[in-house]
Amino acid sequence: MRKPNRQLHLNLFVAPMGHHEAAWRHPDTNVNQPFDFAYFRRIAAKAEAAKLDSLFFADRLSASPGMVRYGAAGGLEPLTLLTALAVVTRRIGLIATVSTSFNEPFNLARRFASFDHLSGGRAGWNIITSGTDEEAQNFNLNRIMDHAERYERAREFLDVATKLWDSWEEDALICDQQAGLYADSAKVHEINHKGRFYSVKGPLNVSRSPQGRPLLVQAGSSRDGRRFAAEFAEAIFTAQQTFEDARHFYRDLKRQAEQFGRSPEHVIVLPGICPVIGRTEEEALEKQAELNALSNPAHSLLMLSKRVGFDLSGYRLDDPFPDLPVEQVRGHVSRTDLIVRLARSENLTLREVLHRLAGGRGHRTIAGTPEQIADFIEHWFTHEAADGFNVMPQIMNGGFDDFVDFVVPELQRRGLFRTEYTGATLRDHYGLPVPANRFSREHAQGL
Amino acid sequence: MRKPNRQLHLNLFVAPMGHHEAAWRHPDTNVNQPFDFAYFRRIAAKAEAAKLDSLFFADRLSASPGMVRYGAAGGLEPLTLLTALAVVTRRIGLIATVSTSFNEPFNLARRFASFDHLSGGRAGWNIITSGTDEEAQNFNLNRIMDHAERYERAREFLDVATKLWDSWEEDALICDQQAGLYADSAKVHEINHKGRFYSVKGPLNVSRSPQGRPLLVQAGSSRDGRRFAAEFAEAIFTAQQTFEDARHFYRDLKRQAEQFGRSPEHVIVLPGICPVIGRTEEEALEKQAELNALSNPAHSLLMLSKRVGFDLSGYRLDDPFPDLPVEQVRGHVSRTDLIVRLARSENLTLREVLHRLAGGRGHRTIAGTPEQIADFIEHWFTHEAADGFNVMPQIMNGGFDDFVDFVVPELQRRGLFRTEYTGATLRDHYGLPVPANRFSREHAQGL
Repeated sequence: MRKPNRQLHLNLFVAPMGHHEAAWRHPDTNVNQPFDFAYFRRIAAKAEAAKLDSLFFADRLSASPGMVRYGAAGGLEPLTLLTALAVVTRRIGLIATVSTSFNEPFNLARRFASFDHLSGGRAGWNIITSGTDEEAQNFNLNRIMDHAERYERAREFLDVATKLWDSWEEDALICDQQAGLYADSAKVHEINHKGRFYSVKGPLNVSRSPQGRPLLVQAGSSRDGRRFAAEFAEAIFTAQQTFEDARHFYRDLKRQAEQFGRSPEHVIVLPGICPVIGRTEEEALEKQAELNALSNPAHSLLMLSKRVGFDLSGYRLDDPFPDLPVEQVRGHVSRTDLIVRLARSENLTLREVLHRLAGGRGHRTIAGTPEQIADFIEHWFTHEAADGFNVMPQIMNGGFDDFVDFVVPELQRRGLFRTEYTGATLRDHYGLPVPANRFSREHAQGL
Repeated sequence: MRKPNRQLHLNLFVAPMGHHEAAWRHPDTNVNQPFDFAYFRRIAAKAEAAKLDSLFFADRLSASPGMVRYGAAGGLEPLTLLTALAVVTRRIGLIATVSTSFNEPFNLARRFASFDHLSGGRAGWNIITSGTDEEAQNFNLNRIMDHAERYERAREFLDVATKLWDSWEEDALICDQQAGLYADSAKVHEINHKGRFYSVKGPLNVSRSPQGRPLLVQAGSSRDGRRFAAEFAEAIFTAQQTFEDARHFYRDLKRQAEQFGRSPEHVIVLPGICPVIGRTEEEALEKQAELNALSNPAHSLLMLSKRVGFDLSGYRLDDPFPDLPVEQVRGHVSRTDLIVRLARSENLTLREVLHRLAGGRGHRTIAGTPEQIADFIEHWFTHEAADGFNVMPQIMNGGFDDFVDFVVPELQRRGLFRTEYTGATLRDHYGLPVPANRFSREHAQGL
């Protein structure tokens, strides 16, 4: 059933302490990790030694005083941190989340082009739209734009950014010192973009980078998000609880990508997985229980309220999970939908939902032996519910180590995962081509 | 005459090839330098070994096809590059130029706080307003805002940014794993800024960084720029051609700073100096002539036109420098004024002006032996025309080496310049305090 050329891909989703909301309280965690570059450098080196495709940081443009009381929020800006990691690593891909909602395309295109140069072609951009009023209020607004407008804006933003990345053709730089010719100005293009949201003349002030543009990643699984992903994204992060849901998502996305004229192999689907690893399944479940016991329900409730965009503080923890007005959600639409379906399908109380979400915010948790986790990965991969996984250790110290020390070698033994890097760039790792430069194409066609 | 505690300061202003517009054509230059991180790393290591206070990159938010034909424009975004340099250096300060005109204060405050954390307190921000229509056209505008509005906006931008940097008090992080308390939410503050240009709720999502905020640097010498510098800047870059002008500027700035209630020692004045160093004065002048001979008048004229915001392409090179409508200039006001005064005072032709500007765009060039250059530096420093210098090698390879190999040791022999770093942060190097946190002050006063 496995296609001969299919390669399993593994991305490490780094949360500074770990993905479990209480990871920071665990005795193995050093609470200074989020601001300790040496720590991140060790993580990156470990991921690179394990030959992972990439590592990745999420982002959020706010942190309220309430959020930081019981929870470890606030840290280094992802692209800043990944830029620093770029010059102390050699092979692993580096994916930074940056929002389209409150940035200028020129600034973003420039930072990513610089990052791609500095990393030697290992840059990836996880494209998000910011979804909360709290974030909007840091950027001159009272309320966040509605979901459809956010995506309309993101689409135009991406259009401008890709034009800017193409504005220097690959061979634009001449650098003839004798003749005094630095660039072929016929190969450096104004883009003259004028749209509904942006008006940008160009060209970019950075020459073409090794990958042409960063790898484009997307993580929204709503209807708008999925459509956006199918049209533009080269790798997709998604939260899927069951094999059936994951396979449905996978097929739907590949089908939609084909409708946009894209090759389905050029759209890599990576569901999140939160592994909890023990020598026995029992030990793994104990580790899970140990972390869950450190959760603070008041904090969990606050974070869930922010996630679904609805204040849950008035509800009783041991009552059935309340009906949420899903239609009114303005924030994380698909995640809210996932949570509501999970609660209904298993008749969970509010407290039970909080426990389920504690380890990975709705991503699939699996506690077991390395073999069990490898079985799970092999099953989803082989039966085309996933092209690989977005690996989200519940706790970094210990948890991530167990994954690279025990699960990765098991996957390698099974012939599922690489034992050496074969390429130099992030696109190489994911088997993705460098997109053609639209201006070079025009030359080639004699336009 | 020298005050006992005065320390000479040296900042390296890095232009990837060198500050001479033809540096890229020189046989000692490798044209790939602007995208070669290993090269920048060597420069930074050399500057650090020489115990310089800091290194610095300028910025511009555009590059037209015409500009890159004969000139080496376009390169890595400064803050991105300096972030990467932060993790491969240990002591030297790192100053990045970022414009207030086309950024959001929340994003900028966050990047600099992250940069200050990653560098262990070595971050500096050169605050600029963007001054050209060409830049405005990359950010949804046809024309740049007028000079006064740019500074009004910059003032409010800075107000928001400093509030955000104060929004986490120094001791806000508790990190009590046992009790499950991460931060003291009473010490994490919403800023609730509502002004003419910005509305920002806060707090920042990065905790307080080692320096509290980056060192604030400013480089505008117009009336508005000077006032802004006197009120806010801790270090000032300025272009001064003569000792008299420099001393006048120095006194005026310190006096204005005092009027704002600031200590004049906390405003460091750093005129630009473009040293051309030879074993004899004759050899230095030959080096200067060699570089000047590589200039392309068509390119020089284009760059001057952009600098003064006035198209000079219709003028004849050997006619007297034309009258410029200085009052109508919307771009670099003080630099235009300097150029016009220079041309008039010496009755220069347009070609002669181009030659004078080729090496440092209006900054003071000095060609001579290491002793002559040290004499110049000592004279301006001792007689309070400068607290130190913004060192702008006309060519990096060779030129910067000569400065650190011959001029710096001479300054050290004379007891003018440090032989070891005595502090850890950029503020330490410049002898500047960490500004008090406004919210901690309120606590202290029982408000």
